[in-house]
Amino acid sequence: MKTEIISKNELLQHWLGHRNLTRQTIEKFPEEGLFNYKVEGMRTFADMIKELLGIAVPGLQEIVTNKSGELNENLNYSTKAQLLQAWDEATPQISDLFNQIPEERFAEEFNLFGQYKSPIIHSIFYFIDNEIHHRGQGFVYLRLLGIEPPFFWERG
Amino acid sequence: MKTEIISKNELLQHWLGHRNLTRQTIEKFPEEGLFNYKVEGMRTFADMIKELLGIAVPGLQEIVTNKSGELNENLNYSTKAQLLQAWDEATPQISDLFNQIPEERFAEEFNLFGQYKSPIIHSIFYFIDNEIHHRGQGFVYLRLLGIEPPFFWERG
Repeated sequence: MKTEIISKNELLQHWLGHRNLTRQTIEKFPEEGLFNYKVEGMRTFADMIKELLGIAVPGLQEIVTNKSGELNENLNYSTKAQLLQAWDEATPQISDLFNQIPEERFAEEFNLFGQYKSPIIHSIFYFIDNEIHHRGQGFVYLRLLGIEPPFFWERG
Repeated sequence: MKTEIISKNELLQHWLGHRNLTRQTIEKFPEEGLFNYKVEGMRTFADMIKELLGIAVPGLQEIVTNKSGELNENLNYSTKAQLLQAWDEATPQISDLFNQIPEERFAEEFNLFGQYKSPIIHSIFYFIDNEIHHRGQGFVYLRLLGIEPPFFWERG
């Protein structure tokens, strides 16, 4: 019998640790900088967070119900408090949905948002990696705004 | 028997895909911007790449030999060609070393660089996540330099 290198629950905990760090990152932004500051050619950090919110729970819902839908990143949040609330509401939903995906399905192909066809494990890595990617960009925005970002390794 | 959610080789391929994208990101930088441009409070992208080079192969060597050493991020690369060459030389070494870690060891605690004690799978996720994080920052540097970054999803 082959030993698994990571269990389903360990991968979920890894993701939740990242989500905690992303939450800390949102908190560091002043309201104005969160919704209005951006580098030429890029989006505001609030818009990146809306993308993450538009992907995680809706994407997992598609996987759990095995039914593709449409990607919607244009969520109506206009204050930092609303963004943080949406973030916090997504957390238990992510855990609940993730736990409903049986191990056997992670290798299964699924057409996420009706357009990204890949094994479910790849989609889940995309959710996590895309969050790390945009949060890294948020760290630069914070530095450009003269604010020290959280520590990358503090996920607790 | 429990089905694994990702095999050892799939995780390696996932990492190699990210390394390919990071390579494309290095390539987009002009020599001058790679070694001299930085946002206040941050490092140059070349220094971030040196950190990644100082972690991946040396970290895996420690794990494979089960012997902690010291972290050295101050590598002597001063041209883009040297950085790319070091990146390309690291790739087969990463594959070779990664393949030498038996599945059973991924849950084992290891004191990486004599200071980061955690299960080996966590260290390996750190190698990958830290690369995604800094590459995301490199994307912002490119935008600030007026250069379009590669596509995040192009890992091939």
